Amino acid sequence: MDGHLRNGVVEVGGNARQQFHDARGYGRPADGNEIRLARVEAAHLLLRGDLTAVVDHDGSAGRLSFEDFFVASAAAAERFALRFLVYADLRDRGFYLTPARAGWPGVDPVASGVDTADGNAVDDDLIDLIVPPRGTKPGDGEPAYRIAVVGERESLPADELANLTLAVVDEESEISYLETTTPEFDGGTTYSPPAGIAGSLIGDRVIVWDAPDGFYEHGFYGQPLEAREAIIDSAVQLSLVEAAALAVEGQLVLDDVDDTDGSADTPASYTAIREQGRRVEGERFDRRLAVYRRLRQQDVVPKTGYKFGADFRTYNTVESVDDLPHSERLVRVVGADHAFDPRELSLDVRLAGGVRKRMVFALTGANGEIDWLAVSRLTP
Amino acid sequence: MDGHLRNGVVEVGGNARQQFHDARGYGRPADGNEIRLARVEAAHLLLRGDLTAVVDHDGSAGRLSFEDFFVASAAAAERFALRFLVYADLRDRGFYLTPARAGWPGVDPVASGVDTADGNAVDDDLIDLIVPPRGTKPGDGEPAYRIAVVGERESLPADELANLTLAVVDEESEISYLETTTPEFDGGTTYSPPAGIAGSLIGDRVIVWDAPDGFYEHGFYGQPLEAREAIIDSAVQLSLVEAAALAVEGQLVLDDVDDTDGSADTPASYTAIREQGRRVEGERFDRRLAVYRRLRQQDVVPKTGYKFGADFRTYNTVESVDDLPHSERLVRVVGADHAFDPRELSLDVRLAGGVRKRMVFALTGANGEIDWLAVSRLTP
Repeated sequence: MDGHLRNGVVEVGGNARQQFHDARGYGRPADGNEIRLARVEAAHLLLRGDLTAVVDHDGSAGRLSFEDFFVASAAAAERFALRFLVYADLRDRGFYLTPARAGWPGVDPVASGVDTADGNAVDDDLIDLIVPPRGTKPGDGEPAYRIAVVGERESLPADELANLTLAVVDEESEISYLETTTPEFDGGTTYSPPAGIAGSLIGDRVIVWDAPDGFYEHGFYGQPLEAREAIIDSAVQLSLVEAAALAVEGQLVLDDVDDTDGSADTPASYTAIREQGRRVEGERFDRRLAVYRRLRQQDVVPKTGYKFGADFRTYNTVESVDDLPHSERLVRVVGADHAFDPRELSLDVRLAGGVRKRMVFALTGANGEIDWLAVSRLTP
Repeated sequence: MDGHLRNGVVEVGGNARQQFHDARGYGRPADGNEIRLARVEAAHLLLRGDLTAVVDHDGSAGRLSFEDFFVASAAAAERFALRFLVYADLRDRGFYLTPARAGWPGVDPVASGVDTADGNAVDDDLIDLIVPPRGTKPGDGEPAYRIAVVGERESLPADELANLTLAVVDEESEISYLETTTPEFDGGTTYSPPAGIAGSLIGDRVIVWDAPDGFYEHGFYGQPLEAREAIIDSAVQLSLVEAAALAVEGQLVLDDVDDTDGSADTPASYTAIREQGRRVEGERFDRRLAVYRRLRQQDVVPKTGYKFGADFRTYNTVESVDDLPHSERLVRVVGADHAFDPRELSLDVRLAGGVRKRMVFALTGANGEIDWLAVSRLTP
């Protein structure tokens, strides 16, 4: 059976409606038994041998084989090759999926069921494919996945990624699927530090020479400053972020700083630590501090995620460091206007998975608001 | 027993030579039984309680406790806190180590044995500590480790990192040790592609519609373009790097390109692919291509390292993709003038270790030379 390419749409007659649309969810019905196919759908039927050729009525190329049609479509339709690879992969996985992008050559979003399957998909530039639950037809119900097809080198705006599925095609055409969600933080750590702990600002850290009981053991603040052989063991080193978060609450006071110099909101110790933080980290320090404080407010313990290449690893509930739970999440702090490189995103998610943690991004806005974005690997 | 701080050096009398130097390798001998200690050495003896206090003859601070001496030294000596943390950690691990940095307050590189232990350590700005084999004294023989102490936020010049040990201190003062070496590549892959394979350049990939026998199976070039259900199975997709490496040897020729237009060294097909590569990747493409070609020349198979956040994963010996070995290495391509962020370095090394691969950096120079740098985690 041949298809007929007219105005970028492939029309198929005969019993196409029963054979392709009703049975397997290809295309959309037109007059009688005829259906209309998007280019990716037609290419897939050609690859399968269900269509013999596509006759080019737009041009004069005559009867196009799969190879000819693929090359012609790649030239005519934006990102055709990428979309085809993902479309074919999901077909192989047993899904009757639908092209979704408004303005996709030959696709009418309404007729393709996008408006019923997902009210906003048509406005959503990122979504390429709507995937109904396995075995069901487009429009039967809520889609199982809303898929954005991305090449390895495209950049992904962080603030548009919530609640969709990314199909990332690498340079060797392997596809990895990433699922994005918006997580909640809800910890159960109860330790609260006393006011007025004394410390010394030394380079990139603050040393508390005589830490109060439970400060490290139950609050998991800082690291003990102790050699195994050492005598002194009540000394604790704080990172600048930990120190600033304590100082802003008046819980930490620097030696040789008079906090009566500062206001209630910004004690002089806090200002001094923040200045050092900005000196070594620039504006990132303020964003990391905001995320640290938000997590502590939710009774979650953030510690450095340095060894995992993240800003923080987080513990929902710390009762004692002698009986420390597995840290559940890795948090990377990015600006709300950040655009991900799929390679970095994949690296972060893979590493987090490898250490049985969830990768979470903290999108920090200009006015201190924080949006959380969790990303994990998915097998459709 | 007290030490005496004069001109940034801590002098200790009494039986200090026997007790501290001869028995445990602290400091260096001066007149009689007196020894001279670098600040980190004196601080460690104070922390242990072997010294009671240090009397400040440089200033008027009087008798300094560990805490006072630590704060004063942090103010007086560059990166004192970082160096102390690593010094104390290695002491705890049973090493009699020596400060090595020329110009270190109170340290004379010659007297500290650096010139005998390591001829060039004195000139080597990165080296902070010389660590003799466990249980032996400084200068007894070749050092076990030459240690560069780095803060999490310092940047590390790639071309100075070969054959040393990095002690990276993170913001919470945890220390991770990284070992750097210069690896050899020596593969055993024997497949060699025929000349004149035909392909179509489509976006970011080249499709070979009718691949020669063994091209994918034994050469591991590209990825089959096949849906599981598909009929066509001799079609192979090549990445732009793979395609360019083949085209420059005349092994790949693009449809609709006449290679007689090009010279012997730069066939027209190669030029066309390289242009597309530069368009999507910029100058990185040429550097990645140079590394890819070098690896193939050494009978190693490079495939994309995308899923690991690297440029390539490499297979030393591929006989058949049906019986693919574990890929041994991850390769990241950087410029010879690249400076590492310790956080990224740690992330790469950790990820590689997690998938049982070695992390290797390809430092590509302006004139096409490539230096290899392998980095792995180490426990002293």
